[in-house]
Amino acid sequence: MRESDFIALLQKLPLHPAARNLQDDCAILEVGGETLVITHDTMVEGVHFLPDQDLADVAWKLVATNLSDLAAKGAAPVGILLSHSLSTADDRFAAGLSEVLETYRCPLLGGDTVSGGASRTYGATLIGRATHCPVPSRSGANAGDGVYLTGPVGAAMLGFEALRNKTGADASAFLRPLPLLAEGQALAPHVTAIMDVSDGLLLDASRIAKASGVSIDIDAARVPIAVPESRRDDAMRWGDDYQLLFTAPAGAKLPVAATQIGTVGPANDSPILLDGVAPDGNSPLGYSH
Amino acid sequence: MRESDFIALLQKLPLHPAARNLQDDCAILEVGGETLVITHDTMVEGVHFLPDQDLADVAWKLVATNLSDLAAKGAAPVGILLSHSLSTADDRFAAGLSEVLETYRCPLLGGDTVSGGASRTYGATLIGRATHCPVPSRSGANAGDGVYLTGPVGAAMLGFEALRNKTGADASAFLRPLPLLAEGQALAPHVTAIMDVSDGLLLDASRIAKASGVSIDIDAARVPIAVPESRRDDAMRWGDDYQLLFTAPAGAKLPVAATQIGTVGPANDSPILLDGVAPDGNSPLGYSH
Repeated sequence: MRESDFIALLQKLPLHPAARNLQDDCAILEVGGETLVITHDTMVEGVHFLPDQDLADVAWKLVATNLSDLAAKGAAPVGILLSHSLSTADDRFAAGLSEVLETYRCPLLGGDTVSGGASRTYGATLIGRATHCPVPSRSGANAGDGVYLTGPVGAAMLGFEALRNKTGADASAFLRPLPLLAEGQALAPHVTAIMDVSDGLLLDASRIAKASGVSIDIDAARVPIAVPESRRDDAMRWGDDYQLLFTAPAGAKLPVAATQIGTVGPANDSPILLDGVAPDGNSPLGYSH
Repeated sequence: MRESDFIALLQKLPLHPAARNLQDDCAILEVGGETLVITHDTMVEGVHFLPDQDLADVAWKLVATNLSDLAAKGAAPVGILLSHSLSTADDRFAAGLSEVLETYRCPLLGGDTVSGGASRTYGATLIGRATHCPVPSRSGANAGDGVYLTGPVGAAMLGFEALRNKTGADASAFLRPLPLLAEGQALAPHVTAIMDVSDGLLLDASRIAKASGVSIDIDAARVPIAVPESRRDDAMRWGDDYQLLFTAPAGAKLPVAATQIGTVGPANDSPILLDGVAPDGNSPLGYSH
């Protein structure tokens, strides 16, 4: 079954009011005067990582991508639960886990270890605490807002290609992404909509546009890229960089460095425009699961 | 790596004070004025379920086993996050999920769907709210307490054998276990230690004994079983029945029906005794992951 069809089935189930879009977004749970932000991500061997990757990097990325989801909500980590497939390199997994948990001060809460099936699978449920309420979402962008990006895209793409082609070039941007927790917390009071770019700038921008009932026009030349100019279009459709993409009122004073890469317009047949034109449908906007 | 070696590595990581034993037990998290009980379980194709099982049953069991963890803490479900491998029978998974979520009034909070690897993997993180504080644990059993079981063991074993041998006999006890949420909430104020029997009565009793620093002597003839007498020993070493196993002061008035199956004694070289004798080491006490 396609993912979108499965999500449509889930939408018919008993849903908690804190559930957001059931797939990419965090649940926002009010508990005893506090607001928790909860997210779950899974990485599967052969799908999200190469079988010969160092499991220390897999552990780092598993936690870092979940932390990036919190960053986009302006939340601070409380603790994490793991689901772990036992394998032969569990000491490497534990080493990478130790590094990322210490770096981001995210303690381990618990979890589950299982004897592996035919493909190793690692999951994490991360619980965070909102630092700003209302917790920012994807759905608040208004026509007239500016569209901003915290840093360049494309570095993870080059890292993946280096790894796949065994060139020996630096792959750290793909292997060990850096969640922008401090930036997300600083931005939360200032943005109208925000998310982390995990699946591709154009795809994720179209998600904000759809959720907000607006269109987003990206000025391609203004998008900061970490790749040669010839790869600009690829870099805008590749994910895994975990920059924060957000909208804010025109002229807003922002507490972190960010580049304006476009503007929010009224709803349009195409939620995303590239230099004023709907992207042709032949190239995917990003990575769809 | 063996699970116990991996858990030993995890013990050296930054741990949240709410973390319990990092594997089988729930995390107990104080948030605002509330106490949350959080658990995660994973089911892997070929390890926890047979490849030809109806995914509706797999979804039921995934949620039910997590609910059973809450039952043993006297907690009530708040909501659940899923990790789902897309496959060809996702409609059956959604159907079983709908049934179990409605039956136990446990709404969906969110989660993650992934393209499948070579083996389908389903995970769930369940968040509950404690109904009694302190939340009961495995570690409070005292010498002199009675040891109790809420109902018979062995039905899931027969169900699994019926399924494996394709006899057509009723396998529902294995396929669709019933978490004892109401019983757990009623018992929580009365017990000194409690857990659900997921991996085998003798193994799980030994876990309570170790965590409490005591020994537990099981009177084999008093253990209620759902199998022929010839299978009594097997039934005490097979898991998946999800009865509640608990200790309470001798003579305690209990709010739910339960059978006394043994007594708590002082610490001993063997944490578990069967009719006063340490079980021989040749048969496993239960299912070790």
